[in-house]
Amino acid sequence: MSNLLEKLNWRYATKKMDPSKPVPQEKVDAILEAIRLTATSSGLQPYDVFVVTNKALREDIVPHAWGQTQITDGSHLLVFAAWDNYTEERINAMFDLVNEERGFTNEGWEAYRQKLLAVYPPRDAKENYEHAARQAYIGLGTALIAAAEEGIDSTPMEGFDPEKVDEILGLKEKGLRSVILLPLGYRAEDGDWLVNLKKVRRAKEQFITELK
Amino acid sequence: MSNLLEKLNWRYATKKMDPSKPVPQEKVDAILEAIRLTATSSGLQPYDVFVVTNKALREDIVPHAWGQTQITDGSHLLVFAAWDNYTEERINAMFDLVNEERGFTNEGWEAYRQKLLAVYPPRDAKENYEHAARQAYIGLGTALIAAAEEGIDSTPMEGFDPEKVDEILGLKEKGLRSVILLPLGYRAEDGDWLVNLKKVRRAKEQFITELK
Repeated sequence: MSNLLEKLNWRYATKKMDPSKPVPQEKVDAILEAIRLTATSSGLQPYDVFVVTNKALREDIVPHAWGQTQITDGSHLLVFAAWDNYTEERINAMFDLVNEERGFTNEGWEAYRQKLLAVYPPRDAKENYEHAARQAYIGLGTALIAAAEEGIDSTPMEGFDPEKVDEILGLKEKGLRSVILLPLGYRAEDGDWLVNLKKVRRAKEQFITELK
Repeated sequence: MSNLLEKLNWRYATKKMDPSKPVPQEKVDAILEAIRLTATSSGLQPYDVFVVTNKALREDIVPHAWGQTQITDGSHLLVFAAWDNYTEERINAMFDLVNEERGFTNEGWEAYRQKLLAVYPPRDAKENYEHAARQAYIGLGTALIAAAEEGIDSTPMEGFDPEKVDEILGLKEKGLRSVILLPLGYRAEDGDWLVNLKKVRRAKEQFITELK
């Protein structure tokens, strides 16, 4: 079995983390760098990642996240926060950055910018937010692997009140909306009901269809 | 730099694939297995993956996907197709499978089943589909890494007419909706305008905010 498949088998949605074991910063940095490097639609990177180590902020979030204690037992809480809308300003900023970094302006690239500007900003903000939020899930899929590669446990969480989390972290005024929480830490030796249970997935034949 | 970050730097949305180089089946299988193993919300795996090697089907799709020729120049087209809704039947099937595979029934797990049954099926189908579609993006984030680990190029595509693709592949009658196309292949030696251009991402400081 490849290293990647081993890591995917090793990881699980950790239910109990050990509060005495903080994750070393260089491991957190490697996870964040993987998220930063992965793909997003048109390369827009339409989300930010917040790394919350502040204990009071994390304590404030717990009651709005079904009391899930990994948020405070872990040492770092990642919050994926998607753009609430695609605006001209945001699209132009990314295309300008690309031109700046590449050192030239490409005709095809500029035509593509105009296409996005014509399609995205006039669209309903909710539709744009949904599209941006999906991109954050590519980041999540990446983060789960990056954490496992570093031997770090993590727990992807959708079960929280996004409006409350937005309020606690001041996201709304930044034009962002919380989409996923991902505490990082180390599994506790005791008290995790899931750790020893078999990972269950649909059989290959039930999940994959070949059209030859 | 870690192997994972190297692979993320190596990959890019390949614009021109070499039609003379098919991807070996064992490499495709490794990519599919990574997708199958990765996380989904509540472990429901609310999407299927179609592997289209049939040339006629792929040719039919191209005009509904902005004429992107990677679909036919690559050897395998992955189609991520999300559940169009969360039904009682689908939720029960997954919880039953978990019980069967683990060989016992867990009280907390059964309570969680009841919670999902109370919340998901009564919800608007569109909201449920959006939630299922997000999970497919975790699979996409995983697939991009798995492909890179195998030295395989890939091109994530949202630019297509999902209703047409659903029709061509017969997805609607299966209660599925196409979300992402991902051709697999090898980058062509010539004709890819993107291959030598710098990968541009927002700087760490513009993407990540630490709340200490």
